[in-house]
Amino acid sequence: MGKHLTSREQDYSKWYNELVVKADLAQTSAVRGAMVIKPYGFAIWERIQADLDKRFKETGHMNAYFPLFIPKSYFSKEASHVEGFAKECAVVTHYRLMDDPNGSGVIVDPSAKLEEELIVRPTSETIIWNTYKDWIQSYRDLPILVNQWANVVRWEMRTRLFLRTSEFLWQEGHTAHATKQEAIAEAETMLDVYSTFVEEVMAIPVLRGVKTDGERFAGALETYCIEAMMQDGKALQAGTSHFLGQNFAKAFDVKFQTKEGTQEYVWATSWGVSTRLMGALIMTHSDDNGLILPPKLAPYQVVIVPIYKGQEQLDEISVVAEKLMQELRDNGVTVKYDNRDTHKPGWKFNQYELQGVPVRIAIGPKDLEKGTVEVARRDTLTKSFMDQSEVSTAIPVLLDEIQVELFEKALKFRDDHSQTVDTWEEFEILMKNNPGFVHAHWDGTQETEDKIKELTKATIRCIPLNNKLEEGKCILTGQPSIQRVVFAKAY
Amino acid sequence: MGKHLTSREQDYSKWYNELVVKADLAQTSAVRGAMVIKPYGFAIWERIQADLDKRFKETGHMNAYFPLFIPKSYFSKEASHVEGFAKECAVVTHYRLMDDPNGSGVIVDPSAKLEEELIVRPTSETIIWNTYKDWIQSYRDLPILVNQWANVVRWEMRTRLFLRTSEFLWQEGHTAHATKQEAIAEAETMLDVYSTFVEEVMAIPVLRGVKTDGERFAGALETYCIEAMMQDGKALQAGTSHFLGQNFAKAFDVKFQTKEGTQEYVWATSWGVSTRLMGALIMTHSDDNGLILPPKLAPYQVVIVPIYKGQEQLDEISVVAEKLMQELRDNGVTVKYDNRDTHKPGWKFNQYELQGVPVRIAIGPKDLEKGTVEVARRDTLTKSFMDQSEVSTAIPVLLDEIQVELFEKALKFRDDHSQTVDTWEEFEILMKNNPGFVHAHWDGTQETEDKIKELTKATIRCIPLNNKLEEGKCILTGQPSIQRVVFAKAY
Repeated sequence: MGKHLTSREQDYSKWYNELVVKADLAQTSAVRGAMVIKPYGFAIWERIQADLDKRFKETGHMNAYFPLFIPKSYFSKEASHVEGFAKECAVVTHYRLMDDPNGSGVIVDPSAKLEEELIVRPTSETIIWNTYKDWIQSYRDLPILVNQWANVVRWEMRTRLFLRTSEFLWQEGHTAHATKQEAIAEAETMLDVYSTFVEEVMAIPVLRGVKTDGERFAGALETYCIEAMMQDGKALQAGTSHFLGQNFAKAFDVKFQTKEGTQEYVWATSWGVSTRLMGALIMTHSDDNGLILPPKLAPYQVVIVPIYKGQEQLDEISVVAEKLMQELRDNGVTVKYDNRDTHKPGWKFNQYELQGVPVRIAIGPKDLEKGTVEVARRDTLTKSFMDQSEVSTAIPVLLDEIQVELFEKALKFRDDHSQTVDTWEEFEILMKNNPGFVHAHWDGTQETEDKIKELTKATIRCIPLNNKLEEGKCILTGQPSIQRVVFAKAY
Repeated sequence: MGKHLTSREQDYSKWYNELVVKADLAQTSAVRGAMVIKPYGFAIWERIQADLDKRFKETGHMNAYFPLFIPKSYFSKEASHVEGFAKECAVVTHYRLMDDPNGSGVIVDPSAKLEEELIVRPTSETIIWNTYKDWIQSYRDLPILVNQWANVVRWEMRTRLFLRTSEFLWQEGHTAHATKQEAIAEAETMLDVYSTFVEEVMAIPVLRGVKTDGERFAGALETYCIEAMMQDGKALQAGTSHFLGQNFAKAFDVKFQTKEGTQEYVWATSWGVSTRLMGALIMTHSDDNGLILPPKLAPYQVVIVPIYKGQEQLDEISVVAEKLMQELRDNGVTVKYDNRDTHKPGWKFNQYELQGVPVRIAIGPKDLEKGTVEVARRDTLTKSFMDQSEVSTAIPVLLDEIQVELFEKALKFRDDHSQTVDTWEEFEILMKNNPGFVHAHWDGTQETEDKIKELTKATIRCIPLNNKLEEGKCILTGQPSIQRVVFAKAY
């Protein structure tokens, strides 16, 4: 087939890179660090988008669109934001090209220099809060519950498809509230939306928690997060929701008149997930044969492949295939019938395995005689025969089963790779590999967190929400601690 | 109310600008020429997107995503493309900011200069064809039917909200074919998709035609277009579909092996519509009271406003309103119930009129007694009473009527502002105003077209498809002509 992947055991990172390309999800481009998302990969992203967008709207949000470019001076307005951000970004300095007087190409017109440079947005808090200033005068104008689907650019030095690219697609919610309580509740609601989506639709179990001071978003008072575990034992941050306090309102002077007639600064949140979720999806479920997709995100949940010799046999099989396809569609299943005669069945089997189509139905001449089809599950690679008359009702049930089992399998993997550790020796040895989630005591200081990272490359992924309080001693310093936090190596 | 608009007659351009802002569609931003699309405006754009996207998929296309940045050298590869494009665009020259050693702000890090400048895409033919080179080896890989929803940047000097902004949102289809015939058929199919959508959903009648050499897209062999007429008699190009021949395949060396084993260059099309459609929508239907929306694009088709004194009366009205709302939703109507006590009914009436909600239902205490509601049509500003029991069936019918009547009204306007002209004197006088579409003879030369534009500012909007052949003499030069073409002043 020529499509064999490097195995996960052999080289996990290489396996991932090969899978992304061979399954037609994405590829690198001529622009350093920017990817092309291919049609099949984008179809999965569209399903992620559509499902999330529906959840955002059900929780009262509307979409809007803000400019791609942000004046450079805006980044200086919120001090902690510029500290944590805005260093590695794409800078627009000119607005015109001209013919090269010395050649046949084009050069930048030196006379078309911008007075103030523009930054391609790495995130949009500053431009959005500069706009909210116009939208908010009174408590009647609040809350503002707005989301934006957009591309953003962060000039990353080491890039990997989906996981870390200089340009990526995301959504960023930016909300404005009259009270602190309401803003915190919003940040928590959106964390709920994310975790429900990631668990129910992507079939990826997540830990819900808050970040430490050191890992918090630049400009936030609290960063809520969901953390997933990949099959190599590394953690991946799948989404964040920030309570921003009044920092951006103060930086952009956004006040409102209260019901009582006083003037107060507005409270803010922001929250986002990105095409990074595609990386999480791939690395949670897939195997050495390629992608495994949860049925809820599969561009087609079922592919039907005819096994035939000659046009006459194909015609007979097509009658059955098209009937089954229609019945399945009527029951809400997305189906593709691949009757191309340019590719052989073996090639097709391999391709759909690589691309993670949850269920493959093969129909050959013997099936015509017996009134059966062969059903193959992508996730378990098991095959069985099924009566044609059962297909339309049995397949939707099977798809639901696959969805649930993928989640359970990932959950079991996470449980098997989570442990509590109480001594630094054990911690240090464990962290030489990627041990999964390590629950350990920490003294609560940034200094210790930094030291642990320096010594082991492990970071505190989160302090779980509703964490059990438990007295103990910091794994590194022995100082008193009131709870365990979750350490891991991370993407 | 403080919301009165300048009238169209008084100042059409000012009317437009005020309407866009006051109806909460869009506003200017801190970045020159870039707009903020506000939630209400964006909700309309989302409906445009969703409907078009469905049509693209029904005609076999898939979405993908290509990089925002294009290496400068790509623009030089297709000679006619760079000639017509790529001069006024945003240029990224650096990838890092640093703290200003002399102050508290940030400056561009001079050491972080890119080796080759990157252009923010003004359109994506070049980067996409550079990618298609990887995708296409054999006839089995064709056709490629891909679309991208994206933001693009063209550094416009004079900008207007939706009509001409430095950044705008659009979709760009880019297809690759084995034969010339297939590529031409694709370009024509997409023109059909556009014109059907614009007429049936946006209720805007369009002329379908091809552009002259002078107005053709840079790099195209044929540019198909749809042209709409605004209420000021000016034309607006609502969409274009280009047959690109083998120009981009040659520029990026994209060949394929035919069934017969020979190597040939691939044939191409590209096609696009943008947020400019929002401008067309506004200027086709709206009046001096604000926006008028065709029901198929309205974020909510019906708004219910309670007229009440005190909580008790509001509660009674709400029982009826919520029942009607549910019944309407069950019949596929989108409804908003505005029971906010922070705003008075008069303010709400005015606001929904400004925002173009097609049908307003008011319910007061007398309606409770009589079992009626007051129904107001936004397009005709007529009001009538309706039995509550009829609402759920009568309103969907009314919405369909409004949709059809808006189209018919616009079509009549266009017919009333279309004429044939045979003498230069008449043509020149007419063009001192915005006369609508003028069908006149033209000698077919670019020189004459340019001269007419110079003298009158009128351009040839299109040569209509299936144009009637008719011998005549060029309006300017008197040279022989075989058909009339459509002149107008244009946005």
